[in-house]
Amino acid sequence: MMRARDLAEAVDAGDLTPAALVELAAERITTFEPDIRAFAHLDLDAARLRAARMTTREGLFGLPIGVKDIIETAAMPTGHGSPLYTGHQPKADAAIVVMAEDAGGILIGKTATTEFAYLEPAPTRNPHDPARTPGGSSAGSAAGVAAGLMPLALGTQTGGSVIRPASFCGVAAVKPSYRLLPMAGVKPFAPLLDTLGLFGARVVDVAFGLAAISGRPLDVAGQDFGTPTFGVTRLPFAGAAAPESEAALLAAIRAIEAAGGRVVELGLPPILAEAHAAHQIINNYEGALALAYEHRRRRESLSPILLAALDAGAAIPVAEFDAARSRANRARKATQDLFAAVDVLLTYSAPGAAPGPETTGDARFNKLVTLLGLPAVNVPLHRHESLPVGVQVIGRFGDDLRALAAAAWLEARACPAAGS
Amino acid sequence: MMRARDLAEAVDAGDLTPAALVELAAERITTFEPDIRAFAHLDLDAARLRAARMTTREGLFGLPIGVKDIIETAAMPTGHGSPLYTGHQPKADAAIVVMAEDAGGILIGKTATTEFAYLEPAPTRNPHDPARTPGGSSAGSAAGVAAGLMPLALGTQTGGSVIRPASFCGVAAVKPSYRLLPMAGVKPFAPLLDTLGLFGARVVDVAFGLAAISGRPLDVAGQDFGTPTFGVTRLPFAGAAAPESEAALLAAIRAIEAAGGRVVELGLPPILAEAHAAHQIINNYEGALALAYEHRRRRESLSPILLAALDAGAAIPVAEFDAARSRANRARKATQDLFAAVDVLLTYSAPGAAPGPETTGDARFNKLVTLLGLPAVNVPLHRHESLPVGVQVIGRFGDDLRALAAAAWLEARACPAAGS
Repeated sequence: MMRARDLAEAVDAGDLTPAALVELAAERITTFEPDIRAFAHLDLDAARLRAARMTTREGLFGLPIGVKDIIETAAMPTGHGSPLYTGHQPKADAAIVVMAEDAGGILIGKTATTEFAYLEPAPTRNPHDPARTPGGSSAGSAAGVAAGLMPLALGTQTGGSVIRPASFCGVAAVKPSYRLLPMAGVKPFAPLLDTLGLFGARVVDVAFGLAAISGRPLDVAGQDFGTPTFGVTRLPFAGAAAPESEAALLAAIRAIEAAGGRVVELGLPPILAEAHAAHQIINNYEGALALAYEHRRRRESLSPILLAALDAGAAIPVAEFDAARSRANRARKATQDLFAAVDVLLTYSAPGAAPGPETTGDARFNKLVTLLGLPAVNVPLHRHESLPVGVQVIGRFGDDLRALAAAAWLEARACPAAGS
Repeated sequence: MMRARDLAEAVDAGDLTPAALVELAAERITTFEPDIRAFAHLDLDAARLRAARMTTREGLFGLPIGVKDIIETAAMPTGHGSPLYTGHQPKADAAIVVMAEDAGGILIGKTATTEFAYLEPAPTRNPHDPARTPGGSSAGSAAGVAAGLMPLALGTQTGGSVIRPASFCGVAAVKPSYRLLPMAGVKPFAPLLDTLGLFGARVVDVAFGLAAISGRPLDVAGQDFGTPTFGVTRLPFAGAAAPESEAALLAAIRAIEAAGGRVVELGLPPILAEAHAAHQIINNYEGALALAYEHRRRRESLSPILLAALDAGAAIPVAEFDAARSRANRARKATQDLFAAVDVLLTYSAPGAAPGPETTGDARFNKLVTLLGLPAVNVPLHRHESLPVGVQVIGRFGDDLRALAAAAWLEARACPAAGS
């Protein structure tokens, strides 16, 4: 994989140039993209041009970036993973694209997404096993970073579309606090849930990238935040995890305790189980509105799985939606007490290793965190046979720094090879 | 003016048809639009076609609707009030457009907006005095309804862009609770503030329209909600109002007391003054992000007033924005106590009657309400010489019904000619 932070340092030191970074990506893409199919659109010539013209040497230092194809770009088409938008050319860049480019990133292409970031699988394959899904909906961003096609890639999460594919593909990822990153120009699915996120090789890489793009002090590398206390929960209302996810969690706990960190088992208030159940109501109800045009005017062009969700959403009475929102609000308030005695929560990133390509996996260990708006990080610290399995570190709302710091601390202890 | 509720009843009774409604609008438009300039784009032929094909007789019963030109439409261009988007044709309708059409509304055109719904005046003139502004940013929607070009029109409010033009143009308008109406497909300016709203002749008309479009039980006509208690506040931290606005407020108070309603003077907690001051920080900071592409890549095409706001927004440190959000959140919590002893608040809709066309007026009596997300209604109950002046009725968050009911109650007592 391409390590964003190390590559940026190499550019800073004069050992690499933005142009060389783009060629590095281009070579990897030539070799692996025909199998991985991470990109919906690729424009290496534009990236070369931009690299040649780059004058500032700061922020992302010319790092190649992939952008999920529900994020609008003025210089590349934006297909939303749907035949309805094939070749669609937006007039403007999404805010996050302008921010990433102005931070010194070089956009190399649009990464494959499931249809409107829902569940219909993208053509992308898992780099660890072509017979497995890379996860969804940010399939191309997760698989592309895992295959070393680029060091950083933007995705979005409405259920578990950042943390789950990161776990399946063995990369780090951060889903920041709700609204830390601006959604203008990102095709909405469920605005109360939709959250931008970032993929990279290691936790320190996504922290570095998020800091540069957002302008917030989130770069955790080389700093001492003390030894974190982890509150473990298995989110019992979400169902059981497969043995490999339990093994990943136990490996994380062992690594924490071996390094002198504290791990406490955390009980969750009942309102969190209610909020977990509310996610699907909000997701489907809002989806049927955000995609009202596609759903009511172009339904023949939608996949059966999306159509079923939108039909279900359109049938939800408004009072049921309002009640679900109330439950979510009560749960957000209850969440604040959870962090009284712990720095972060620790749980599964996904129910198991990547399943076959007919699904994109299950978001049941991610939905609640998305609904609560808490920052979450996937730490890719375990393998089950050839397949990666991550764990999820979750922070207090607005405390993305502590979530990233604790995740980086864990990664350094659990996978010394990460070198972070 | 065209009274939405009465016209819908006439269609229901068989005395009018959707086709006749469109011709009624077309005649008024032929006569008045050359002077008013309410429309950025007009398509009466499409409206005629739709009216001729309409089969359902319910909801809006074929009422012609204008849609503010920052709201995307698949069948009409969407210019955002900016030369950057002249002739821009979106691929899809915004959610609210699909909802309005599926509720039986007939879209007749896109109404003129200030540039990206900010402060650069639109070409629209005030029907009550062509030398006065209709207000902004929803200029064409307010002026068009006031001139009787259509019975209902959609607008948006980020500062005071629904309530203020309604006051200046002498029409009713509702800015519902934050997020009651979906923003998908509406060009964002400040997503924490942006709120869709609706203009109509009387309060009962906007309540009728909002109920039909949203599918929520908000149609207040003919129901007895009891005699409301109004909590009067002059929002002292927003500065003084001109005599005509004070006269409108006093007229409202007299009408309430004459009808046996209760009016209590309300003190506001200091956090509301802090939140009032936070509005501009959030507005400018988010504006510089939501319009990042236009601001950073096309700045030569922006008006000086917008450019100044976005430059100011881009210079706000992220910690200052976070602090402003915190103040807004604390103020939202404090707001809940305000309604312990009153049903609704009553205050100015605008600092005075419509000023000259070089500005769009001042939103200082609207900003706080927008930031708090509270439902607000303009009641057009007063005249100062030839110019209308409204008052603002504000409800508890999520209690749009009570805000509309109290506003309709007041309107019926203060202006019996409204016949509501």
